[in-house]
Amino acid sequence: MLGTMLHGPRDVRCEEMPEPAIRLPTDAIIRLSASCICGSDLWPYRGLNAVTAPLAMGHEYCGIVEEVGAAVTTIRPGQFVVGSFCLSDNTCPHCRFGFPSSCAQREFMTGAQAPLARVPLADGTLVATPGLPDDALIPGLLAASDVLGTGWYAADAARVRPGATVVVVGDGAVGLMGVLAASQMGAGRIIAMSRHKARQDLAQEFGATDIVAARGEAGVAQVRALTRGIGGDAVLECVGTAESMAQALQCARPGAMIGCVGVPHGVALDGQSLFFAQAGIMGGPAPVRRFLPHLMSLVLERRIDPGRVFDLTVPLADVAEGYRAMDERRAIKTLLRM
Amino acid sequence: MLGTMLHGPRDVRCEEMPEPAIRLPTDAIIRLSASCICGSDLWPYRGLNAVTAPLAMGHEYCGIVEEVGAAVTTIRPGQFVVGSFCLSDNTCPHCRFGFPSSCAQREFMTGAQAPLARVPLADGTLVATPGLPDDALIPGLLAASDVLGTGWYAADAARVRPGATVVVVGDGAVGLMGVLAASQMGAGRIIAMSRHKARQDLAQEFGATDIVAARGEAGVAQVRALTRGIGGDAVLECVGTAESMAQALQCARPGAMIGCVGVPHGVALDGQSLFFAQAGIMGGPAPVRRFLPHLMSLVLERRIDPGRVFDLTVPLADVAEGYRAMDERRAIKTLLRM
Repeated sequence: MLGTMLHGPRDVRCEEMPEPAIRLPTDAIIRLSASCICGSDLWPYRGLNAVTAPLAMGHEYCGIVEEVGAAVTTIRPGQFVVGSFCLSDNTCPHCRFGFPSSCAQREFMTGAQAPLARVPLADGTLVATPGLPDDALIPGLLAASDVLGTGWYAADAARVRPGATVVVVGDGAVGLMGVLAASQMGAGRIIAMSRHKARQDLAQEFGATDIVAARGEAGVAQVRALTRGIGGDAVLECVGTAESMAQALQCARPGAMIGCVGVPHGVALDGQSLFFAQAGIMGGPAPVRRFLPHLMSLVLERRIDPGRVFDLTVPLADVAEGYRAMDERRAIKTLLRM
Repeated sequence: MLGTMLHGPRDVRCEEMPEPAIRLPTDAIIRLSASCICGSDLWPYRGLNAVTAPLAMGHEYCGIVEEVGAAVTTIRPGQFVVGSFCLSDNTCPHCRFGFPSSCAQREFMTGAQAPLARVPLADGTLVATPGLPDDALIPGLLAASDVLGTGWYAADAARVRPGATVVVVGDGAVGLMGVLAASQMGAGRIIAMSRHKARQDLAQEFGATDIVAARGEAGVAQVRALTRGIGGDAVLECVGTAESMAQALQCARPGAMIGCVGVPHGVALDGQSLFFAQAGIMGGPAPVRRFLPHLMSLVLERRIDPGRVFDLTVPLADVAEGYRAMDERRAIKTLLRM
């Protein structure tokens, strides 16, 4: 089959590779209905994470189960399933505590930018829909696999409450999903920090009430002005740089939680500053599996349309163009059609 | 009157000074029933915070109101009151959000190691008891002013839930109060990290179910062994050093919150480590005023006896000995009798 491999910085190829097969009795093989490119795929693509050997790319997925291993009991061939980018057994103490993304058996999904993929820990990882979903819902269900679940976790970790004033730092796909999540959780006001017209528009469509285009100190000053000097009740940090973290901290009111879902690159926090700012921090890889049944229901009931975050669709053969478009910020997020 | 001044490292004196007077219409003057020495007083005492001018020491207090300013409406002379070490108006947005320790008008109390003290923002800061309390309850009520309220906040910020496994890092007075707080919040298991017999005993009296005497990696290994490799559901960081913070982080299970109440000295957190540990952090100066009515009730109803944390009582004239005893760890916490 043709699948996606990253060979080095900006060298991503759709190339011939063997079809995946069951390796462990807890595996499933799925035929992907669609796949996509994640903002985090750009770290190795840009050479910011070292690539020492070719990487089978792709960790967001949904599709039809082709085959399951002998130990799989809850998933059957023919079912439509969505799984998290974090593979988890859903039974260990960390999973039961609500953090399947730190599962004792955790693995990270790979190889999903391809027509077929192997999903380890299938029973714990995959959630099936009641029937086969309408094609129009595929992008939304695919989004639940990571980008929506991650934005949702940002809002959950930031403890967004009904009526809350929420600040979202980052207008990438995850930040936009954070806006949608905060809106679903009943936030009274959602301030999206975004400089790009298309992203501003989408943020507003997802529920943003205010847009702040400025960054850094100027951006913080605008957020402070919009909140009468108080700051946000909850802040979603959806980038992962030192600048975005500083911005998030300065937009947080004392007692606010900052939900951090951007993988930190070069972020150091000074204990005493954090202490006297009295801002809380919670983050990490999103425990998407915890949210997945709820998020899938919201999509299936057409109460949310997270698939709107895909503003470019290319066939798998053109995956390199999908990466380029995201790298150059011509696209928010690229959907890959099989 | 005779009050306590710090002139430089290890140079604390009980010396003649003018009696405090009302300066602002929102002030009250109280006659202290007792005062005490705080672990945080040892930072400047030890020269770890620079002392550039003589400091009027003392921020924990309870006593009888002598006089109030013209604008004070809820507190009257003759009442017995307890106040937080953070002075707050209790009406600003930060106070209403539950964080009076970040009040827009916040000041830190000073000069309470003396028979009389001026309390600014009296209406917002002070809480009166229904009548004059029994003398035996004075130490417990005094503890509510800071050390108990701070330990309580550590447990609150760490989101201790009924049945939770709680790890307390630090066996100073605040850590011991954290044990008591976790116990009151229904923790199922409380692991106190303490090397000192007297503190271990007190921790157990306050509700600790397990004692870990080892520190650093060995201590973490013991906590992990006690929790079947999982770590604590909630961790209370009650010291504020790089070592104690590292210990707290390594004792936290993924998804756990760490309540940080030790003022950080030389603590830097690596964003990526925190992210992948999936531990949350919340701390800062304790919003004691939020908890004060509840804590005072618990003491008045004799349901808790936080006054047990005072293991040395000296007359105010001997305040220097009180500091020495704490500095040399001969005393956990020193009560000053007027």
